[in-house]
Amino acid sequence: MNDRYARGLARQAELRGADERREVYDLLADTAPDLSRLAVEFAYGNVHARDGLDAARRELVILGALVALGDTRPQLRAHTSAALAAGLRPGEIVEAVMQAVPYAGFPRVFTAMTAVREVFADRGLLPVTAGRTGPCPPP
Amino acid sequence: MNDRYARGLARQAELRGADERREVYDLLADTAPDLSRLAVEFAYGNVHARDGLDAARRELVILGALVALGDTRPQLRAHTSAALAAGLRPGEIVEAVMQAVPYAGFPRVFTAMTAVREVFADRGLLPVTAGRTGPCPPP
Amino acid sequence: MNDRYARGLARQAELRGADERREVYDLLADTAPDLSRLAVEFAYGNVHARDGLDAARRELVILGALVALGDTRPQLRAHTSAALAAGLRPGEIVEAVMQAVPYAGFPRVFTAMTAVREVFADRGLLPVTAGRTGPCPPP
Amino acid sequence: MNDRYARGLARQAELRGADERREVYDLLADTAPDLSRLAVEFAYGNVHARDGLDAARRELVILGALVALGDTRPQLRAHTSAALAAGLRPGEIVEAVMQAVPYAGFPRVFTAMTAVREVFADRGLLPVTAGRTGPCPPP
Amino acid sequence: MNDRYARGLARQAELRGADERREVYDLLADTAPDLSRLAVEFAYGNVHARDGLDAARRELVILGALVALGDTRPQLRAHTSAALAAGLRPGEIVEAVMQAVPYAGFPRVFTAMTAVREVFADRGLLPVTAGRTGPCPPP
Amino acid sequence: MNDRYARGLARQAELRGADERREVYDLLADTAPDLSRLAVEFAYGNVHARDGLDAARRELVILGALVALGDTRPQLRAHTSAALAAGLRPGEIVEAVMQAVPYAGFPRVFTAMTAVREVFADRGLLPVTAGRTGPCPPP
Repeated sequence: MNDRYARGLARQAELRGADERREVYDLLADTAPDLSRLAVEFAYGNVHARDGLDAARRELVILGALVALGDTRPQLRAHTSAALAAGLRPGEIVEAVMQAVPYAGFPRVFTAMTAVREVFADRGLLPVTAGRTGPCPPP
Repeated sequence: MNDRYARGLARQAELRGADERREVYDLLADTAPDLSRLAVEFAYGNVHARDGLDAARRELVILGALVALGDTRPQLRAHTSAALAAGLRPGEIVEAVMQAVPYAGFPRVFTAMTAVREVFADRGLLPVTAGRTGPCPPP
Repeated sequence: MNDRYARGLARQAELRGADERREVYDLLADTAPDLSRLAVEFAYGNVHARDGLDAARRELVILGALVALGDTRPQLRAHTSAALAAGLRPGEIVEAVMQAVPYAGFPRVFTAMTAVREVFADRGLLPVTAGRTGPCPPP
Repeated sequence: MNDRYARGLARQAELRGADERREVYDLLADTAPDLSRLAVEFAYGNVHARDGLDAARRELVILGALVALGDTRPQLRAHTSAALAAGLRPGEIVEAVMQAVPYAGFPRVFTAMTAVREVFADRGLLPVTAGRTGPCPPP
Repeated sequence: MNDRYARGLARQAELRGADERREVYDLLADTAPDLSRLAVEFAYGNVHARDGLDAARRELVILGALVALGDTRPQLRAHTSAALAAGLRPGEIVEAVMQAVPYAGFPRVFTAMTAVREVFADRGLLPVTAGRTGPCPPP
Repeated sequence: MNDRYARGLARQAELRGADERREVYDLLADTAPDLSRLAVEFAYGNVHARDGLDAARRELVILGALVALGDTRPQLRAHTSAALAAGLRPGEIVEAVMQAVPYAGFPRVFTAMTAVREVFADRGLLPVTAGRTGPCPPP
């Protein structure tokens, strides 16, 4: 287990979405185990764990990218979890996804919001109360 | 001038990128003036000016979406300006764009970073020092 | 209820797809009610209800955009309904979707055509007879 | 010269944008001449020249697809010409491109409108007067 | 039955994925039979059956394009079959899909790999042993 | 200089496109030096240098992905160079890019072919003679 892998696992653990990610990693264990390893090492160990931007802000960028890409339901679910773990409130996540409308259009945002809602429903976070900015999470 | 338009203009003014946006609005004044009006009213008056997420965080979502979409150089320039106006430091903007690599791939990020760099160069913000999270801008 | 919202609802009612749209609006009522409101106000009240292009022609543009975007099955279903309500015949809708092949490729078009077919099947419009268009006199 | 190629050339000639297309065909004559031939045969001879939807309506679908795809400036220019040749008025083309905003977002539409404007400017069609469409009787 | 159609069918038969493709062709027989015919004629008869690049190499290009496009699960399944029929080993197909990560990002590749795995599972090809390049298939 | 970085540099050197890549790396040296480092380490050291698929086949996947993504002119130039360095002939590269037409559509392919042609022109490789498959490059 190299350093980046350990750092990536640690970062994923902080963001808790690990369980949902683990599901696809396990599924692909007989097909492409190196793909999951590279995701941990690179996406988390090399990029997400960098200094210079806190986890909550990183998750906002990721949400924007996933909404715009489309066909990213599993990733939107995992990063809704990660966004909550990073300290974003449900109402802030809803605002973040809505902020993509003028750039990526309504179809992408409606589809993404449905994935976000699934995670909130699983966690008993519905109904979402009007988004209010909480205290800025520690950097 | 309706309320949303006024609110949208006010929001754009806060974000200062107004000048760069004004250029394309002016260009299209003889072709599609309503497109520019709708952008001010809807993208800024109806969406960006909403409560529940501060401007800096909104710009992080927008940067993520623009990087992922591709073919968005003018918008990346305008929103690099807006991100600065919203209180994000150059190093934080660089980190935000890099955070898109695992999701949108290197080509999108290299192209986006080049647009970001143009704005930094125009404003004398180069070289970018290692990204450090500054104090959380007021919500 | 502001003017744009009323105008948007009226436009949606003309296009009948309202029922299908209502389903996703209802689902998101506990998560992002403002998203649905903005869709009615902006997409229908501000854009679709504009003068200068009739509803049928607007639906052709929308079909082209939805096919090209991908990951838009619910929207393709709603706009197949809207296209029928706007007076397009099934054979014309099929031709419109096929017209996207050289630009967006076969995978997008096969996936879209399957969504179109679902709506036709629900409404007893199969088999589709060869599309014939009437003469459309110069505007 | 097979039938489809002849039919494709004839269709292109009707749509006049041929000159602009010819430019890229000529450029690629030393690299991929078959690509241009297939475009004439397939995109025009096999698809565009089909019955069941008139040329103007086909161009609306194509405009929607090109706006949504992004990175399609040369094609948007050629199809703005084709849309004019097919009888669409400048104001109708502007409305068609604006109709893509709620689906493909503002960045795609601003970039596309700039390409549309270039063609209008070349042809002395500016300023565009408010789009008005004539009644299009039921087919 | 024209020449291109016959040539296309023959090429599809070589690539065996025909069964999976036949399913969607049959589904659309009452809606858009010409779409399936054009796919056989153009995608296979006109393009895939060309000289100058063997079938295995063509499938690598196609896999790269399908991963990057997204929302292409049925096509990824059909072309995993075609890639096997063209002589690529499971481990090589896995490597090919992983090669898209730095360009199209992890979400596209995880989703694509899941579709690839389904085909391998159906055919008893799991677990995939570490990719080793076999002898170069005849051109 | 870690192992992956060294391995990535070595792989890039083999593929010769290094010069073109170096240009953008140098440009971004004052903005995001870590982005270039990660590209060398991850895209080349971790992925491209893997066993299981030779460099020429990897470049075919990459070409397919870059054509489909769009807005990738600099990357298409670099990977046309890399494809040549990996042993693909100009006619094979042209065939590979054409193979993307049925999946990604003509606009993406015409734009990509223009970028490919620029590299061929710079290297005196025009006109391209009809694609013939050469001997399979060593794995």
